[in-house]
Amino acid sequence: MKTVNIVLMGFGNVGRAFTRIVRDKQSLYRKRYGINVQMKSIFEQGGALFISQSSVLDAILEKKGPQLAESGHWKSGVKLEEMLKSGEPGVLVECTPSNLETGEPGLTHIMNALDSGWHVVTANKGPLVVDFRRLFRKAMKKGLAIGFSGATAAALPALDIGLHALAGTEIQGIEGILNGTSNYILTRMTEGLKYPEALREAKDKGIAESDPSLDVDGWDTAAKLLLISNATAGTEFILSDIRVEGIKNLALDFVRREKNSPRVLKLLGRLRKKEGQYMAEVVLDFLAPDHPLFGVNGANKGITFMTDTMGSVTVTGGKSDPRGAGAALIKDIINIHRQKP
Amino acid sequence: MKTVNIVLMGFGNVGRAFTRIVRDKQSLYRKRYGINVQMKSIFEQGGALFISQSSVLDAILEKKGPQLAESGHWKSGVKLEEMLKSGEPGVLVECTPSNLETGEPGLTHIMNALDSGWHVVTANKGPLVVDFRRLFRKAMKKGLAIGFSGATAAALPALDIGLHALAGTEIQGIEGILNGTSNYILTRMTEGLKYPEALREAKDKGIAESDPSLDVDGWDTAAKLLLISNATAGTEFILSDIRVEGIKNLALDFVRREKNSPRVLKLLGRLRKKEGQYMAEVVLDFLAPDHPLFGVNGANKGITFMTDTMGSVTVTGGKSDPRGAGAALIKDIINIHRQKP
Repeated sequence: MKTVNIVLMGFGNVGRAFTRIVRDKQSLYRKRYGINVQMKSIFEQGGALFISQSSVLDAILEKKGPQLAESGHWKSGVKLEEMLKSGEPGVLVECTPSNLETGEPGLTHIMNALDSGWHVVTANKGPLVVDFRRLFRKAMKKGLAIGFSGATAAALPALDIGLHALAGTEIQGIEGILNGTSNYILTRMTEGLKYPEALREAKDKGIAESDPSLDVDGWDTAAKLLLISNATAGTEFILSDIRVEGIKNLALDFVRREKNSPRVLKLLGRLRKKEGQYMAEVVLDFLAPDHPLFGVNGANKGITFMTDTMGSVTVTGGKSDPRGAGAALIKDIINIHRQKP
Repeated sequence: MKTVNIVLMGFGNVGRAFTRIVRDKQSLYRKRYGINVQMKSIFEQGGALFISQSSVLDAILEKKGPQLAESGHWKSGVKLEEMLKSGEPGVLVECTPSNLETGEPGLTHIMNALDSGWHVVTANKGPLVVDFRRLFRKAMKKGLAIGFSGATAAALPALDIGLHALAGTEIQGIEGILNGTSNYILTRMTEGLKYPEALREAKDKGIAESDPSLDVDGWDTAAKLLLISNATAGTEFILSDIRVEGIKNLALDFVRREKNSPRVLKLLGRLRKKEGQYMAEVVLDFLAPDHPLFGVNGANKGITFMTDTMGSVTVTGGKSDPRGAGAALIKDIINIHRQKP
């Protein structure tokens, strides 16, 4: 039995869902993978909750349980950096909000973790989008893993397909519907709603955030495409390398321009090889019924990899809510630590 | 650099495609994964070809190159069993024809390989369908891997999804279009062809074998479902546990019974949980347009896993020809040997 110490940074929706799944399925991980997942502490701004016994988790996971800082096990002023230096290394789970410009505060957290010999599993795109190459070089030098399934498309296993299921192939192209909010809006507009109506509906259903700019302007798709492409096709894109189109305020006439054909409008993250060079873009395109992503509707996502020896492989689905992202974080922790073969 | 010795058993279409890809991409595997894939010998009934230098591979891969037994490097009478005992262990790649009743001759080859400390990668379903549990127990006891991506659906990464991308989840159900021949016939019948016409066309295109019984009677689907289910859901099915329906001689009227609705007829391998018990069957079912496998047409395949924490995840596509199967064998070899993290 291998014990894996977990320090969680950030207790928003994803951090909370992650914690709940670990609490509920700990014995399954022991039995099936021989891995004893031990949550040691949960950090938020200003301090940390120390988990000395499982009842501490039960209390904060209760619907009306105390906020972390109100719990009796909270210590103000504790610094993540010091904890990482002093504790037995395991996995830092990074769930702070994503900042695509500075990568902070996650970037500093991840750097500190790697410096102190901790693996990292992250649901936060920012640090990797900003500093992909430096983070992976550092991790490789130290023999550490950075798992970021939860940062690319929650439970849609885009990275696992590209890195594991297609091992040995050359990625010749990628096409993905990577953002649930914009796909939901486009689907509803295809059905006849105008942009503001579709957006309002997406907000009412909890699909769109109150400020949906990153989603509808295409930057969330661009960030995910960057991560997937850099990881699986060996590119070294930064965000400004990607030409980005969004769906904001699209005219209904445009979306339904092909309403007499079966083709439907989608926002795609696309990687192509042109004269030996990879090119990445986020574009609106009409897909025909035989396109493998044609049926990916509503808040669903999907991605197609084009390869040399295996043809095209497409994966669709996977919960895109906090629970799906939490499960993706755990999946990475298991795959880092499980015994081979 | 880790050198991985390969002994290939069986030089039919898949064995040949495997050999060609290894020859062509050896330097990529070295560079990207630090793995030096070394083909040592190729066995067929009656003897083996020993690969002392790369020109031996070039000669037999040429279109008009010699058959193995005509090559100057062929040794008659050499036994696989002895070679496995005497050589530095690596990976046995098993590509002999599949026998779903006895599992032979592959079963003996795989047992011998495990006994001598070799990992196994196989495109041959027979041995695993017949003796799944015993083979995996032996492998586990010896710390060896059995990779069988190539035996479940060629380049469609069904096992990678179930075992790796969904790690930590509970598989609650599986639905798969797992046989290209019967899906091709059903697709063409949906378009108006009668069964004998559709079958003839599939044969003319090289999709159906000259004796397509295993495919059209549903047993190939059942065998793949058994392997995927036993590996990912922990079932211990044998073939007789699965209720199997086929498509042979289906009436056109039946296939097109719903021609005024958008639903289409598919042959599905299906695993369900009923009162805590898994149940497996191969059934004909009409799928609605919002079913994730609805768009899987022609010789294409696809599979959906229903899970507790990640929702439903579907993977479709992947070459189903010998090259796709060959690439799947190599993928397993890489994933057994690549460095973590």
